Amino acid sequence: MITVEEAKHIILENTQDFGIEEIPFLEAAGRVLKEDIVADRDFPPFNRVAMDGIAINHRFFEYGVRDFKIEGIQPAGAPQQTMENAAHCYEVMTGAVLPNNCDTVIRYEDVSVNTLMATVNIDDITENQNIHAQGSDKKKDTILIKKNTIISAAEIGVLATVGKATVKVAKQPKVLIVSTGDELVDVNKNPLDHQIRRSNVYTLVSLLNNLKIPAETAHITDEKSVLKEKIESYLKEYDVLLFSGAVSKGKFDFLPEVLDELDVQKLFHRVSQRPGKPFWFGTTDNCNVFAFPGNPVSTFVNCLVYFYPWYKKSVGVSSVKKTAILTEDISFKPNLTCFLQAKLTSEKGQVYATPIQGNGSGDLASLVEADGFIELPKTEEVEFKKGSVFPIIRYR
Amino acid sequence: MITVEEAKHIILENTQDFGIEEIPFLEAAGRVLKEDIVADRDFPPFNRVAMDGIAINHRFFEYGVRDFKIEGIQPAGAPQQTMENAAHCYEVMTGAVLPNNCDTVIRYEDVSVNTLMATVNIDDITENQNIHAQGSDKKKDTILIKKNTIISAAEIGVLATVGKATVKVAKQPKVLIVSTGDELVDVNKNPLDHQIRRSNVYTLVSLLNNLKIPAETAHITDEKSVLKEKIESYLKEYDVLLFSGAVSKGKFDFLPEVLDELDVQKLFHRVSQRPGKPFWFGTTDNCNVFAFPGNPVSTFVNCLVYFYPWYKKSVGVSSVKKTAILTEDISFKPNLTCFLQAKLTSEKGQVYATPIQGNGSGDLASLVEADGFIELPKTEEVEFKKGSVFPIIRYR
Repeated sequence: MITVEEAKHIILENTQDFGIEEIPFLEAAGRVLKEDIVADRDFPPFNRVAMDGIAINHRFFEYGVRDFKIEGIQPAGAPQQTMENAAHCYEVMTGAVLPNNCDTVIRYEDVSVNTLMATVNIDDITENQNIHAQGSDKKKDTILIKKNTIISAAEIGVLATVGKATVKVAKQPKVLIVSTGDELVDVNKNPLDHQIRRSNVYTLVSLLNNLKIPAETAHITDEKSVLKEKIESYLKEYDVLLFSGAVSKGKFDFLPEVLDELDVQKLFHRVSQRPGKPFWFGTTDNCNVFAFPGNPVSTFVNCLVYFYPWYKKSVGVSSVKKTAILTEDISFKPNLTCFLQAKLTSEKGQVYATPIQGNGSGDLASLVEADGFIELPKTEEVEFKKGSVFPIIRYR
Repeated sequence: MITVEEAKHIILENTQDFGIEEIPFLEAAGRVLKEDIVADRDFPPFNRVAMDGIAINHRFFEYGVRDFKIEGIQPAGAPQQTMENAAHCYEVMTGAVLPNNCDTVIRYEDVSVNTLMATVNIDDITENQNIHAQGSDKKKDTILIKKNTIISAAEIGVLATVGKATVKVAKQPKVLIVSTGDELVDVNKNPLDHQIRRSNVYTLVSLLNNLKIPAETAHITDEKSVLKEKIESYLKEYDVLLFSGAVSKGKFDFLPEVLDELDVQKLFHRVSQRPGKPFWFGTTDNCNVFAFPGNPVSTFVNCLVYFYPWYKKSVGVSSVKKTAILTEDISFKPNLTCFLQAKLTSEKGQVYATPIQGNGSGDLASLVEADGFIELPKTEEVEFKKGSVFPIIRYR
């Protein structure tokens, strides 16, 4: 049995490259950028008026001029005009090009305007004020967004601005999520007394959708020959197989045996953690197999702890480590890493984790009450003190 | 000019009810639940075996019996069997129903099994161990998920388990995002020197997609008659109009005038904040109008500060307040609330905000470097000290 750290290490040594695809920029939110995004022009592309008002030549204001004849209007979206007489002014609109021969903008709030003249009512004017100077944000050819950034609304705006109607992003893996277990019936069925409905595959679909991965699902009965035949074809077709169940010591837990017979290289089986100890991980030339234990909380936390960082490293993104402060003493006896459901709250710049007393790995309902897991390290200690800081894994 | 707090208050007093719709449960992630989800059976629905191993009657173990004749196997997914001889044992699999006449499960790790007999190798056995007792998580008819919960992967699992193939959620508002400004050309066009590409509408689309709202977009030129005609029809067709631009003091900022002529009740215009001061908000019987200033950072932060909480309250969800610790001194002169782009980092259970020195509200590229905004309150003070705690608004 290996430790959580060893298991994470092995998994991160076995990432894949799913390749690159080009998609419409507006569909790229949540995806990982696979090209540097460069300024196609200066930002702003011209000396841009930043306030509605009048544009003047500051020299004349310095000379003491306060009344400026209005020579014209420069609206946003019009080609740059030229103020012929430097002692005049131009009415200018936010977003417009600053007219030639002007260098300073005074907002309407500080002038009195009639049809012919504008009178400046204040004395405190700085040269170049209210002008967003060409190239002052970014110069042409500067990298605006680096490759391997996760695209958010902010990046969508920049992509639009530089005219990237389509954009290169990491392709998503082709994932199949497979449930096993003869006790399972589908969501729209009425289970008999000894049956329960399939839920883990749907939880996993939803966790993968959070990463914008569109996963497919399948179910295989606990029959070794069927399991073998189906998995053999899945291994060729998919980049990733996620299993839920059939990896423990039960008489019908054929999965490790079948994967071995199909030449999937086992990289580990069993991790010193609770929940999710019987987790099995292996690989072929083209496919990674994550076989999670079938208890709902085990499947859930294993996906977050192992699949998420594996996927992120595969597409070139690093996982951000977060921590929280424990709000009460916790005792946990077994010498295992413990992933405990926790309610996460925020106060005065601090993040607090309050453990949710679930009923063990089978207690799906307890996940609804929590926001994430707190990771208590494998140690001889049995007491984890209130006020101590531990890593957390958020799922909402 | 009203304060940020007054503006928020007015907006939250003017929410809408978009109604309820029933959708497939697997499409419900990110949506707001509009019915209580109740346990259709006990959770677990039977005394569920929690470990692969043997089930015995504990009384006999107490009598000193260590060798148990194997009477049968109870796999997961099979109807409950009965152990006829209470001195025997049954092989049982995780997820199976506990056989009749058994009350304790001993895992395979602690027994030696041959075809006929199982010998228990340990002395420390507790009655009822390794059994996930019927109803111990939740009793039938208990509420598992409360109405008005935002559905995450955890809720998806519970919905599947209780057989909710379709689920009632808050309907989404019908939203149109409208850009104005003659300087704007579309993403796939090459702008002339005095033009820029449309980006705010796409940023807003992406921010709304984060809330699972599928928004439409439109563009109107800076011509008053066109503006009026189009908005008149939009007001009838949509629940929400989001504008970007044409609300300031410019000669072509017709929007407040047009909205007034179309009998949209103005609830405020101008908020004492930077960026985004000229924000206009109003309402008709069936439509709310958020008219944001056209600078990219203004539009972005106004959507987060005003539209997000408005939407959340409309669908029955409260906004969670978060805070962070300032990592450096900041001085900000004007007596306005300041929303400052910030890099947010997490260390030892603390969240830190490091301001990003952008170039003002026109600097879209600076949003890429930040993770959120820090809200510095409107105050006579000009110095905000390192180590102080302020509200934050995250966008990644």
